[in-house]
Amino acid sequence: MESILIKGASVVVTQDRERRILRDFDILIEDHRISSIARDISATADVVLEAKGKLVMPGLINTHTHIPMNLFRGVADDMGLMEWLEKKIWPMERKLNPYHIRAGALLGMLESLKMGTTTIFDMYFFEGTIAEAASKIGIRAVLASSVLEFPTPETRSAEEALSIAENFIKEWKGRDPLVTPSIGPHAPYSVTPENLIRAKEIAVDENVPLQIHLAEDYSEVEQMRKKYGKPSIKHADDLGLFDARTVAAHVVWPSSEELEILRKRGILVSHNPVSNMKTAAGFSPIPDYLKNGIRVGLGTDGAASNNVLDMFETMKFAALIHKGYMRDPTVVNVRQVLDMVTRTPAEFLGIKLGAIEPGSMADVVILDIKKPWWIPLHSPESHLVYSARSSDVAHVIVNGKLVIENGELTTLDEGQIMKDAVKASLDLLERSGVKSFLSNKL
Amino acid sequence: MESILIKGASVVVTQDRERRILRDFDILIEDHRISSIARDISATADVVLEAKGKLVMPGLINTHTHIPMNLFRGVADDMGLMEWLEKKIWPMERKLNPYHIRAGALLGMLESLKMGTTTIFDMYFFEGTIAEAASKIGIRAVLASSVLEFPTPETRSAEEALSIAENFIKEWKGRDPLVTPSIGPHAPYSVTPENLIRAKEIAVDENVPLQIHLAEDYSEVEQMRKKYGKPSIKHADDLGLFDARTVAAHVVWPSSEELEILRKRGILVSHNPVSNMKTAAGFSPIPDYLKNGIRVGLGTDGAASNNVLDMFETMKFAALIHKGYMRDPTVVNVRQVLDMVTRTPAEFLGIKLGAIEPGSMADVVILDIKKPWWIPLHSPESHLVYSARSSDVAHVIVNGKLVIENGELTTLDEGQIMKDAVKASLDLLERSGVKSFLSNKL
Repeated sequence: MESILIKGASVVVTQDRERRILRDFDILIEDHRISSIARDISATADVVLEAKGKLVMPGLINTHTHIPMNLFRGVADDMGLMEWLEKKIWPMERKLNPYHIRAGALLGMLESLKMGTTTIFDMYFFEGTIAEAASKIGIRAVLASSVLEFPTPETRSAEEALSIAENFIKEWKGRDPLVTPSIGPHAPYSVTPENLIRAKEIAVDENVPLQIHLAEDYSEVEQMRKKYGKPSIKHADDLGLFDARTVAAHVVWPSSEELEILRKRGILVSHNPVSNMKTAAGFSPIPDYLKNGIRVGLGTDGAASNNVLDMFETMKFAALIHKGYMRDPTVVNVRQVLDMVTRTPAEFLGIKLGAIEPGSMADVVILDIKKPWWIPLHSPESHLVYSARSSDVAHVIVNGKLVIENGELTTLDEGQIMKDAVKASLDLLERSGVKSFLSNKL
Repeated sequence: MESILIKGASVVVTQDRERRILRDFDILIEDHRISSIARDISATADVVLEAKGKLVMPGLINTHTHIPMNLFRGVADDMGLMEWLEKKIWPMERKLNPYHIRAGALLGMLESLKMGTTTIFDMYFFEGTIAEAASKIGIRAVLASSVLEFPTPETRSAEEALSIAENFIKEWKGRDPLVTPSIGPHAPYSVTPENLIRAKEIAVDENVPLQIHLAEDYSEVEQMRKKYGKPSIKHADDLGLFDARTVAAHVVWPSSEELEILRKRGILVSHNPVSNMKTAAGFSPIPDYLKNGIRVGLGTDGAASNNVLDMFETMKFAALIHKGYMRDPTVVNVRQVLDMVTRTPAEFLGIKLGAIEPGSMADVVILDIKKPWWIPLHSPESHLVYSARSSDVAHVIVNGKLVIENGELTTLDEGQIMKDAVKASLDLLERSGVKSFLSNKL
């Protein structure tokens, strides 16, 4: 494995336990890990990155997406949920096959890496294809094979989905250091109690994380109350779902009693502020979660409801929308937001990640801060949340490998990924009969 | 004046009356104006911009900022309003002189131009200095000299402020095609009824716009009700303030009866979604304004409450936060948002701007769309609001002049602007005694 020496970084936002910010430091990366941080390291290395005028921080962790949905970007917006699903998303989704999945996943991963995201949590179909894409392009990925009661492009039944998920986990566990396989029962309203339990048992038996959509929409919680006499989180908890290490996406509508479940079970709430605004799900009570010591990570959700996978933008939305909604400018501060994209999800995963410190896995982002919007540099933490643009990302290192160098992908051909995605998208339009500006042209 | 030929633009989002989107068109710019739009224009021009793989749109209009406040970026965040003002902003603001104003203004204008903004509406002090900066760097600017009852860095009294504003307007009217002088009575709570009327009279006599903060905070409206027995907008209307062509910033808290005043008086509401979230002012009822035919523009506000002047980001916030707040994904659609940054404020100004059509002033932005987040190109309008990054801006033309070429400023030295801003910021810290990360270093 190549060694990398980052020389003379003007600013290092370590995100270590003391949240130290260092100036003019070197960082040495050897054997996939950060081996030392000091002034004037004299070691030789295979790659030397000059970092004067640059800021070094841990790679960003996106805790919720559906990466192949990048092919659906902008196909329809500003519509009611059911119309959007029935006329646009579902017709396209039904026609998906591994060819589209691969093209969309690589597009989403390319975009993610260029914007400084080094780990994605994904829930979709054909996760084996997605795992191969992650391994090839060089992004860290926690991939959940979805379980749903109704047919998907990959499965005809929940029975089949459970079996595919179990096989996917067995196949990918320990196979590639970048890939953590996982299981994704879609949501309490779309999976029966029996199959939620079976999904949980697979996660526990295989010791992998479980990913689920939880209490995203108010109508879901109402529906659960009617059907089971209790709201979504309580329902899932009573089934024992949270015996598995659980990432719960959205969690916009908890009852106050359910907060204690989220805390006690160590659930990682994946907050998706951009998606929650776009789909009009509402404001997840993040200030309450933080006050109650509940783990909070950030996610973009899929490109169909965002429409980009920009974690810098997501940080700004997370820091701001709750201030507006609570009418309190002090809720959700920059330090809390930085933890959401680094330390907190890393701790949940149990991988030594999310901080620039010796021994940590080398997932590192280097930003060019010689830009007008970085002046003056009153506070690097404030600037990372409120002023940084994802385009400031110059270099990205994942698992000790330089995958983005001067903004360009080193592992695969960017132009080819983009061409393949256009082609796959056109193919999907043709198969599904969905119309768009693009399809009108060609 | 140089002529510019834009060759083979892959996409032109015209923002003309029919909101036409053209493919593979040429655009010729002569004598500050767009002279023709057609396939294969054969004219020669001083500058030829190859635009295959690029998108052309009208320059963005930022209807509310305090441009020198870029020097205050990130000095303090996530604080209560009064603590923030008393401990940080006011101590620095009291020490401002034209040296800082010039440095901060150029920094803010550089940032604006690089991000595709071709017109700014500003309200601050020393507007003559800001006008000179706008003229030199080459940005279109509508500049309001502020009027306040209490002392400012420039004035000791409202009396003096009114006189300075009047002189500024007389001096700059008709002097530079880029600069529209204007008057800025700060707000109904900070200017007496008598002085509001005098400010209005100056605006009407000189036929220039008037800019004011209006109903930004709920407590302001309460205060006005107590003092005058009516809310802010009604109070201002009864004084005849809106006899002047008025830009009202924020307007978060109108009563339902006041909507009719906003509509009837043709007021341009400048919506500042990022600032409104950061200061916790609340959610301006933009869906109601649109339904009632009230003019809506977008603004960033000053960098202290944003902390960047990115109008692409502002568009996304404007399109999304009201969906979340109203729990309705159909409110505020992409076409409405694009109008807010182009046609609507241009129409208010009475300058032929905000559309790519023959005869229009040539304020034009050209984006590089060969980027992963532009794929697939289902809808250029959707992508401009939800997916475009301000860093996609490649070229910017203001008033027929190419001011940003391949992302770099052509008129002044970018590096010098950045250096000067750092220096002025340090000087301001020293004079005011405010502490920051930066000051700790040096």
